[in-house]
Amino acid sequence: MIRIGIYGYGNLGRGIESAIAQNNDMELACVFTRRDPTSVKINTKGAMVLHSSEVTKMTDKIDVMVICGGSATDLPEQTPYLAKYFNVIDSFDTHAKIPEHFDRVNKSAIENGKVAMISVGWDPGMFSLNRMYAGAILPDGKDYTFWGKGVSQGHSDAIRRIDGVLDAKQYTIPVDSALEAVRSGSNPELTTRQKHTRECFVVAEEGADLTKIENEIKAMPNYFADYDTTVHFITRDELVKNHSGIPHGGFVIRCGVTGNGNKHIIEYSLKLDSNPEFTASVIVAYARAVARLAREGACGCKTVFDIAPAYLSPKSGAELRKELL
Amino acid sequence: MIRIGIYGYGNLGRGIESAIAQNNDMELACVFTRRDPTSVKINTKGAMVLHSSEVTKMTDKIDVMVICGGSATDLPEQTPYLAKYFNVIDSFDTHAKIPEHFDRVNKSAIENGKVAMISVGWDPGMFSLNRMYAGAILPDGKDYTFWGKGVSQGHSDAIRRIDGVLDAKQYTIPVDSALEAVRSGSNPELTTRQKHTRECFVVAEEGADLTKIENEIKAMPNYFADYDTTVHFITRDELVKNHSGIPHGGFVIRCGVTGNGNKHIIEYSLKLDSNPEFTASVIVAYARAVARLAREGACGCKTVFDIAPAYLSPKSGAELRKELL
Repeated sequence: MIRIGIYGYGNLGRGIESAIAQNNDMELACVFTRRDPTSVKINTKGAMVLHSSEVTKMTDKIDVMVICGGSATDLPEQTPYLAKYFNVIDSFDTHAKIPEHFDRVNKSAIENGKVAMISVGWDPGMFSLNRMYAGAILPDGKDYTFWGKGVSQGHSDAIRRIDGVLDAKQYTIPVDSALEAVRSGSNPELTTRQKHTRECFVVAEEGADLTKIENEIKAMPNYFADYDTTVHFITRDELVKNHSGIPHGGFVIRCGVTGNGNKHIIEYSLKLDSNPEFTASVIVAYARAVARLAREGACGCKTVFDIAPAYLSPKSGAELRKELL
Repeated sequence: MIRIGIYGYGNLGRGIESAIAQNNDMELACVFTRRDPTSVKINTKGAMVLHSSEVTKMTDKIDVMVICGGSATDLPEQTPYLAKYFNVIDSFDTHAKIPEHFDRVNKSAIENGKVAMISVGWDPGMFSLNRMYAGAILPDGKDYTFWGKGVSQGHSDAIRRIDGVLDAKQYTIPVDSALEAVRSGSNPELTTRQKHTRECFVVAEEGADLTKIENEIKAMPNYFADYDTTVHFITRDELVKNHSGIPHGGFVIRCGVTGNGNKHIIEYSLKLDSNPEFTASVIVAYARAVARLAREGACGCKTVFDIAPAYLSPKSGAELRKELL
């Protein structure tokens, strides 16, 4: 059995717990929380809940620690720190800061003989893998990533910070005609606006100036100004009823040319009812890989690029060759 | 530079040559042929053409030998034999015999300290990888593989063996409604007939009994009897004009469930103008991996499951993390 620890029990942490239950070579050993542990109810019988300050007491009880903090401030501190004591895995997703995060985590993991995997999920993660495989296979080509239809937490939060807004959900939606242009193999140049639209469902305070809110959303730099944005004002009941899910997904498409102008399209797509549960499922498969690598004596920081696919599967090499090759 | 040998110069061998030219860390060292070498014209300046009987003279000139023989009779002999002298890679695609082929190649490669990779291409190959990744991520689910639209060489050959047939091309076509049912997440049970149709373009001898030919095709066990098959009789000119390409492709789709009934669809698809050129492009990327593994001192038989993705790319780990993660 691979004994998993969960460090942080929000949406992602609960998804990890649920994914562990689907894999019978794994068990949840302990959940660590910054809240009062007695206030945290988990679903796994026999697993402990401890305060995060007690984490170093559990070094011999956990094979892989799944760190479920946020990328902005939690993971840059937590992952290098916890890699001193545990084999760890995180879902660090600030693409621009990955090299820096890698270096810090790598140093800590190597100094302490641990395996530390970062940036696991679907983007970064499975989408990165597909960009890489497709680029290596078709060097003479171009790749495109589209996201959605799905809820962007960052954009929803940005709307909620506007005066007069009580709650909001924002969907990122890929533009069908752009997807079709890419699939046609024409390798189009696409602007930000041509690739995605944004649709916002907003609950406003009674008496709020809706036009002002709508304009403020649409003009927000980085978040909305470069996109065609639609704003719908709805009631809180409608938001709860129709927009409580956290779906997401997207597409990685590469078009490349070989020989005498022969075109090839490689497409990978995801359609996910629950973004955190799918992300958790990817992380749990890679936690198996981390546990195995650690048993083999590996150490240092790893990403999805560094791990042979077979390490993710509970099946043996012979089973994989017989059943899936 | 990674020096590549090509053993067998048919459609796949020519595709390998063309793919090498797209990768500037590789060069074609030598083509080996069973024909008279003076009769074989290749496109690469500076590369040699030798008779296959002379292959053992080139052991110090080639880093990876790409074996381009057929799976029925060539590769079961060639790959274990050549793995005595070279790091090798093949595209062995008789799924049911992969375990046996693996064992024979593995023994030879280990005894001789070589890296030998088998069953590389898109199915087996990239499709296998996607079945494996998706299955590891979503253990509670079901996967489906569809092939086409594309030319099946085996089915085209089967038609050509019928009395009165001069030439033929057969297309395997996935059934749209079956694809849509799978994508809907309903996990349908699909019969052979429900998944694919077969379309045949046949050039018959003058005066041949077309009805008899058509019936013979449609009744052919294994090849056509279990499918809805359409037969078109056309002229040789039409066959050359409209059906000279070797397109192919297909879909690997997994639908799985997490948490409280949340569904997730993972889909990988290929749309290929040239089946042999794309297969060759996959093989050449993995030839890079084989060369690197050999330099690291690895030996034995490998498949796509055993090789970390980063080995396929000419980019460094730091470049991959910065640009693609």
